[in-house]
Amino acid sequence: MNQKDVNIYEVTPRDGLQNEEQIISLADKIDLIHRLVACGYSDIEITSFVRPSWIPQLADGDKVAREILSFYSEENVNFWCLIPNRRGLERALDVGVKSVATFMSASESHNRKNLNRTCRESLSNLEEVIGISKDEGLQIRAYLSTAFGCPYEGDVAISQVLDYGTQLLALGADVLALGDTTGMGNPVLVEQIIAGFVSRGVSLDQLALHMHDTRGTALANILAGYQQGVRIFDGSTAGVGGCPYAPGAAGNVATEDLVNLMESMGAKTGVNLPRAAQTGAYLSTLLRKTLPGRYYRYQQGQAHKQKSA
Amino acid sequence: MNQKDVNIYEVTPRDGLQNEEQIISLADKIDLIHRLVACGYSDIEITSFVRPSWIPQLADGDKVAREILSFYSEENVNFWCLIPNRRGLERALDVGVKSVATFMSASESHNRKNLNRTCRESLSNLEEVIGISKDEGLQIRAYLSTAFGCPYEGDVAISQVLDYGTQLLALGADVLALGDTTGMGNPVLVEQIIAGFVSRGVSLDQLALHMHDTRGTALANILAGYQQGVRIFDGSTAGVGGCPYAPGAAGNVATEDLVNLMESMGAKTGVNLPRAAQTGAYLSTLLRKTLPGRYYRYQQGQAHKQKSA
Repeated sequence: MNQKDVNIYEVTPRDGLQNEEQIISLADKIDLIHRLVACGYSDIEITSFVRPSWIPQLADGDKVAREILSFYSEENVNFWCLIPNRRGLERALDVGVKSVATFMSASESHNRKNLNRTCRESLSNLEEVIGISKDEGLQIRAYLSTAFGCPYEGDVAISQVLDYGTQLLALGADVLALGDTTGMGNPVLVEQIIAGFVSRGVSLDQLALHMHDTRGTALANILAGYQQGVRIFDGSTAGVGGCPYAPGAAGNVATEDLVNLMESMGAKTGVNLPRAAQTGAYLSTLLRKTLPGRYYRYQQGQAHKQKSA
Repeated sequence: MNQKDVNIYEVTPRDGLQNEEQIISLADKIDLIHRLVACGYSDIEITSFVRPSWIPQLADGDKVAREILSFYSEENVNFWCLIPNRRGLERALDVGVKSVATFMSASESHNRKNLNRTCRESLSNLEEVIGISKDEGLQIRAYLSTAFGCPYEGDVAISQVLDYGTQLLALGADVLALGDTTGMGNPVLVEQIIAGFVSRGVSLDQLALHMHDTRGTALANILAGYQQGVRIFDGSTAGVGGCPYAPGAAGNVATEDLVNLMESMGAKTGVNLPRAAQTGAYLSTLLRKTLPGRYYRYQQGQAHKQKSA
């Protein structure tokens, strides 16, 4: 990988779908993951091992993971599963998962609402989860949500983000994914936070940005992170999911928009852009709604123009 | 104005509306301009003096300009009118317009399709138009369309953009607005083009960026321009207009998304953001469709949440 090139982490099957009201069948989920593999994504978050009553959409997590891992056993793709706690980790280990992602928030109120724990309690819980994961030889990503702002508290102190982030890495997480849960990030804040981690001795290849496009700033924030040296970026096909506030409003940044930005700057992603955009169009049909991504609709418009020409 | 601060150029009444199929009444246009003034925009492009048969939506250009200029005679706002040629300039002078914008493309095919002339012919036509405008004491902006790519030719040579751009400034244009007609720009290209102009002796305050969000990259490109020192940026409320390819697809960058990005980085715009977003919601109602802007929908979602809480 050239130092300009980037790694795209695709979250659609988990983060993209988890807030969808319409339940997607197991077969459609498997089909979607096959499509994402065919797009060339090297890292795909395929499901979550949370309590089924908590997120009914992902109640089939064990089946999804089992089917995908048995099909792609020889493949060079990391299939990540989200685990909230030790019970989730045990389910992941049962299925034979090799890459797990865990999470906590940088703000107390969001952590309490999301996990019913204080940040301190989450950290001590994650110490055990990350420890077992390392012992079992798994690779582990730690999400730090509300790293750029909290829906309940507003601004989050940078020092707090740096404290929790460096602690998660010290516990053994391979990658720290900074989540802009509410899309409140801006390029200057991104720069300050990345610089803060670097000044605390964190290596740039340990950092990932998980940006939301709620206010339309995701790609500008990603550009700022890229300019600082971050090379791992999360996206969701056509921008599906990620707590949008209003119908048609944006949450997760659209993966194909992100891929297009990077490729247009000469940073290779390893992703087939037309195919990624086609997957966005497919998802829009599957979910029976227009999704927030720009690029897949641009490509649809181009195809339409060619047909009518 | 602090050197960090920016100037926002609002194009909704002209560029935003010109491709709308639904004809907007004169009263609604006037009302929209009043709202934009109330938002705090210092530069608003209110109409175009093109042949009525060419753009029926703007056939009432003289009436719009006359009514607005008589109402706001004491106001500190620049009301710009687009003029394609000498005939348009004469109409603008008749009405008492003080700020005119003219245009040509950086690519031959686009210039020919849009203006039915070669780029050379356009330049010589603009020499006269800009000359008269200066003699009449008008301020004049020159758009250079397809500066980051052409829908017919694809990439446009940077040297060609620099050649035409510097010539337009040499003819006497006060500001050169670089148009990303097809949203093909990327942050690296923006950087190269701005640096190219600076190396040819162009002052940064003579440059404006008119970016399209067709592929979702507008704000990332604007950030790149801002980092290079550009301080004038165009936007259209809620992202209306600007040749979108497909229903719901994006053209012009949404002004309120742009304002939010700048204000979040500490760059003052002079614009009241909640009011600008409210104008986006109003426009969506007026045009009876969801518009591509992100921020106005985020604000709508917040208002909805507060009501239901």
